[in-house]
Amino acid sequence: MKLQSYLMGEWREGQGEGVPVRDASTGEVLARVTAEGLPVKEAVAWGREVGGKALLALGFQERGRRLRALAQYLSERKEALYRLYATTGGTRRDAWYDVDGGIGVLYAYSSLARNLPEGNLLPEDDFLPLSKDLSFQGRHVLAPKGGITVQINAFNFPVWGLLEKFAPAFLAGVPTLAKPATPTAHVAEALVRTMLESGLLPEGSLQLLVGSVGDLFDALDHRDSVFFTGSKATADRLRRHPAFLERGALFNAEADSLNPAILGEKATEEELSRLAQEIAQELVIKTGQRCTAIRRVFAPRERLKALLEATRKRLEALRLGDPREEGVDLGPLASLEQKAEVEKAVAALLEAGARVYWRHPGREDGAFFPPTLLLAEDPWPGALHQVEPFGPVATFFPYGSREEAARLAALGGGSLVATLATSDPEEARFYLLALAPYVGRLHLLNARTAASSTGHGSPLPRLLHGGPGRAGGGEELGGLLSVRRHLGRVALQADPWLLSALTGEYAKGAEKPAEVHPFRKAYEDLEVGETLTTHRRTVTEADIALFSALSWDHFYAHTDEIAARESLFGKRVAHGYFVLSAAAGLFVDPAPGPVLANYGLEGLRFLEPVGAGDTLQVRLTVKRKRPRDEKTGVVEWAAEVVNQEGKPVATYTVLTLVARKGALAKGS
Amino acid sequence: MKLQSYLMGEWREGQGEGVPVRDASTGEVLARVTAEGLPVKEAVAWGREVGGKALLALGFQERGRRLRALAQYLSERKEALYRLYATTGGTRRDAWYDVDGGIGVLYAYSSLARNLPEGNLLPEDDFLPLSKDLSFQGRHVLAPKGGITVQINAFNFPVWGLLEKFAPAFLAGVPTLAKPATPTAHVAEALVRTMLESGLLPEGSLQLLVGSVGDLFDALDHRDSVFFTGSKATADRLRRHPAFLERGALFNAEADSLNPAILGEKATEEELSRLAQEIAQELVIKTGQRCTAIRRVFAPRERLKALLEATRKRLEALRLGDPREEGVDLGPLASLEQKAEVEKAVAALLEAGARVYWRHPGREDGAFFPPTLLLAEDPWPGALHQVEPFGPVATFFPYGSREEAARLAALGGGSLVATLATSDPEEARFYLLALAPYVGRLHLLNARTAASSTGHGSPLPRLLHGGPGRAGGGEELGGLLSVRRHLGRVALQADPWLLSALTGEYAKGAEKPAEVHPFRKAYEDLEVGETLTTHRRTVTEADIALFSALSWDHFYAHTDEIAARESLFGKRVAHGYFVLSAAAGLFVDPAPGPVLANYGLEGLRFLEPVGAGDTLQVRLTVKRKRPRDEKTGVVEWAAEVVNQEGKPVATYTVLTLVARKGALAKGS
Repeated sequence: MKLQSYLMGEWREGQGEGVPVRDASTGEVLARVTAEGLPVKEAVAWGREVGGKALLALGFQERGRRLRALAQYLSERKEALYRLYATTGGTRRDAWYDVDGGIGVLYAYSSLARNLPEGNLLPEDDFLPLSKDLSFQGRHVLAPKGGITVQINAFNFPVWGLLEKFAPAFLAGVPTLAKPATPTAHVAEALVRTMLESGLLPEGSLQLLVGSVGDLFDALDHRDSVFFTGSKATADRLRRHPAFLERGALFNAEADSLNPAILGEKATEEELSRLAQEIAQELVIKTGQRCTAIRRVFAPRERLKALLEATRKRLEALRLGDPREEGVDLGPLASLEQKAEVEKAVAALLEAGARVYWRHPGREDGAFFPPTLLLAEDPWPGALHQVEPFGPVATFFPYGSREEAARLAALGGGSLVATLATSDPEEARFYLLALAPYVGRLHLLNARTAASSTGHGSPLPRLLHGGPGRAGGGEELGGLLSVRRHLGRVALQADPWLLSALTGEYAKGAEKPAEVHPFRKAYEDLEVGETLTTHRRTVTEADIALFSALSWDHFYAHTDEIAARESLFGKRVAHGYFVLSAAAGLFVDPAPGPVLANYGLEGLRFLEPVGAGDTLQVRLTVKRKRPRDEKTGVVEWAAEVVNQEGKPVATYTVLTLVARKGALAKGS
Repeated sequence: MKLQSYLMGEWREGQGEGVPVRDASTGEVLARVTAEGLPVKEAVAWGREVGGKALLALGFQERGRRLRALAQYLSERKEALYRLYATTGGTRRDAWYDVDGGIGVLYAYSSLARNLPEGNLLPEDDFLPLSKDLSFQGRHVLAPKGGITVQINAFNFPVWGLLEKFAPAFLAGVPTLAKPATPTAHVAEALVRTMLESGLLPEGSLQLLVGSVGDLFDALDHRDSVFFTGSKATADRLRRHPAFLERGALFNAEADSLNPAILGEKATEEELSRLAQEIAQELVIKTGQRCTAIRRVFAPRERLKALLEATRKRLEALRLGDPREEGVDLGPLASLEQKAEVEKAVAALLEAGARVYWRHPGREDGAFFPPTLLLAEDPWPGALHQVEPFGPVATFFPYGSREEAARLAALGGGSLVATLATSDPEEARFYLLALAPYVGRLHLLNARTAASSTGHGSPLPRLLHGGPGRAGGGEELGGLLSVRRHLGRVALQADPWLLSALTGEYAKGAEKPAEVHPFRKAYEDLEVGETLTTHRRTVTEADIALFSALSWDHFYAHTDEIAARESLFGKRVAHGYFVLSAAAGLFVDPAPGPVLANYGLEGLRFLEPVGAGDTLQVRLTVKRKRPRDEKTGVVEWAAEVVNQEGKPVATYTVLTLVARKGALAKGS
């Protein structure tokens, strides 16, 4: 049976015999993979055109909602994926990392959508005044680039690998063409079939290519991107394509790397034991076939033996076997080819001076490879830090000083993640500064995090996944980081009216007087830039005295004529929060209406002192609107309190919850 | 006379005869350039070691102060640079763009330092809870990578080009090795001599290489970066070096591009005339030798003639000549080689179907090239959008519809900047979405911005400079964007105590009780995490009624029992600003002391309604400190107001100005 590709809206079969996909435990041929003769270049153009348009028609908000619905849809169907997953040599626990981990990324990106506006443009920072009169201003916006993203995945996470790249691209509005690795392509194919069956993904937003990419890169240009996960050697080869070198397509690589774990000099016995548990776990999960797994362990020379022993103890009770059998902790490697690679790497490490400290006495038949601890008494030979056995193998190194440990860790040339076992701030700071050039994620393990840590090897949706140098230099996940990475940055320069219209946010200078009190208008009817200018209020000495009495805030600047005269203000002044409260008194419309609550405030600055005799007036302008649910939306208001000279005394943004039209008609 | 390089702390002269640098107007040889035999690879290692350490010893704040002092130092010495600049063919106005423009970037980055912390780590976003009990949290920090940045500059802006790359690198703490272009290397050498003479730059923070880079790239790895400005062809060639393809050094390219200007269909006559002025100006400044200059002009078919004529009228009165002569508007090109390049490009455009609409009747001797307007009645031949005459030449194209105009503009394959003349929001939105994949900056010109626009061709320190595709795909300037680009991102995972220690900001969960009221402590003595837990206050109905009376805020949720019952809260509640005021009443210490003012507030959220009978208490924690000046610092406090059940009812950050120890001793 040949696996199919989903290209240009159809499931298609490649020509020729193809490459076999085998069950990792039994060796049985499950399917064959070939992409010969498939229209891959055409699929790029089709994806941009059909998928791109369909995605942009939805906007960030609806795409976020669909991600959540998709996560639910997959959750209800995950047992089928678990069963298929077992053929790859993974235990049920491994399947959980892959399947539930992937679904978790969908949920996370769905939640992140709440921080995004409607439409497809994402304004950054704030408006930048470029002329004194504010008639010329600037703003950065992130905008769709009109391209597609091609994901090239590794064999070890057929589900998570696809979903963790898909979710941010989908949320950004970028169509995906996914190319899974052959050994687990059958799992990826089943996943994509389920995703498409959900009916949640607009046509063109997800295509699948099972087999070789062929001349696909010839169709890519600066609008497109390739997100690659795999070996550094392959990454370096792909990077040379003119699509990246001449036509400016983005190449993002995430390569397996020799991730270090360091036992700090200040680590306690408990922390040593917890680190041993972490190392053992890293060898067991996916039988060590994770690009984030711990490959190199550094310990103070006098504690190395203790750490080795503690790790051995954790591992020796485990059982290797077919993950479909009861009581199996650890499956085979994904294929005989993978086993041969691991054996080759271990031989190279032994050649470079490491020796086998301990080897699990489990199965070695077929694709099985038992957990192995290597010891390098001379830690300096370069090959020990460059050759990666992609399986359940870790090399232990002694160090004499923290400077030495940091230099040894750096010999890996860049890692996805490092673990440091310590609770000492000074030791942690040393390693953060020393390792920052060499690591994408730094995981600190100690007694306080022992129970709650999510683990060395587990990338999280909201944190950067990627690392410098040898680790590929790419950036994945990291919350909105990866959504932004799919968009293009444009520096806009214009008058405030056009800037408001283009960004959907009020730029100072683009006000239009409100004809009715804006608190009487439903969410939909409020226009960005609409401004209420209130009546005025003269502040009296009684106001200051009463506010002091009511708030219990008797700060000398408000209450002590003598000290106030010598203060920053030179006189007794009103409380800042009185100014805020009086401003609300000026702009609030008392009767029930669409504005349901003031739930917060941002960016308050007191600009000028206010004293008795000063007269206040407020300009309240609709700054920005964000949908929330079917009944309500969030409206942000720019408030400017001015005095009798027209000088701003306070500016801030008020956050309110405003009813939608439909909700208003129905009641309240 | 050979120009010298400043490498490894010494001025050094290259071997051999070298290449001549000539006066652009007279052809006289001014100097010779050679880097033969210079220790360039050693200079990379030395820069990392000596310069990197010295820069990190200063921290963001001191580096920001030094940038300002450097700007002042150069301002006082700019006449000498002006005089030297005239030898490059530039007028005094051109010199202003180069010299004052460059100094302006130093000032801008100095100001940006105020938003940065002390030290060298820049935390991003906020703490991310990774476990329910908050014992495990995450945070992204940007950290120094330990490398150097090599800048490779174009001939046209010897001063600005060097300073606009230097300022963000210096602020980030990254040592610079600058390599100027040969035709104007004498100006860059003079600039660097002055910069070094200032005594403001720590040893190793700035090196100069006059001449070829030789095998310098062989010394670069993932810690380093190259910021290149020049032609796309050279960029594509350099990009192939193993430093970038295998060792992960960052290559940032900013290439000259065929920047479009579009007369919108909705543009008024006034806007047409203003666009003509803009086009003419772009041909005149630096005699059209700016990578941001307008190269292609698109107008509705029926208005093209009018735009051409208006542009011609602006140009015909101008005088070409030696910029040192009185009354000269426009100098020669930078060299005979440049002139030959421009002639070749114009010939290619004529070959592709353009014709000469008008040519300025000025000088054509030596390196002089008169302003030239080309007209392409058939706008579609690809070469017209690919061949760039790097001089005072623009090609005019007719368009039939805005879709056509957008497609024609896109044929340039990516530009640094585009100008659109319109004041129509719908037209502006169409072009923003259509051009976003093809442009780094979009400049909107209309009657409202006519007087205040800073111009199509002028990059600004706070806005992105760079563009996709043909424009090189790089990012320069853009305020802190470019500082961040010089740092490495690390995802930290740890307990709140270590996270607080590493980031210098309070992470929830890492509180220590204050022993004295923290408002009695000077800036230096306050510790991040120090927490005051206040006495309590029971809210009464009288409080609500009085607050309503005093604030004039009679919103029904506080004052109308009937409406309040049907509201979101289900009962009459206290004003949010009463809660804020009462909290201040609980934590403020009334007598004069180090806390000089509460100048603002961030991130206020009201989490639970507060009614009569509820009892409030506040936890006030030192969240973050920022130095401000010699007498004061900014202290941010995390405020959490809880009710009798311990539930947070409001959280926010209070911004205060706090006196330093020295200032306290002296008085107040």
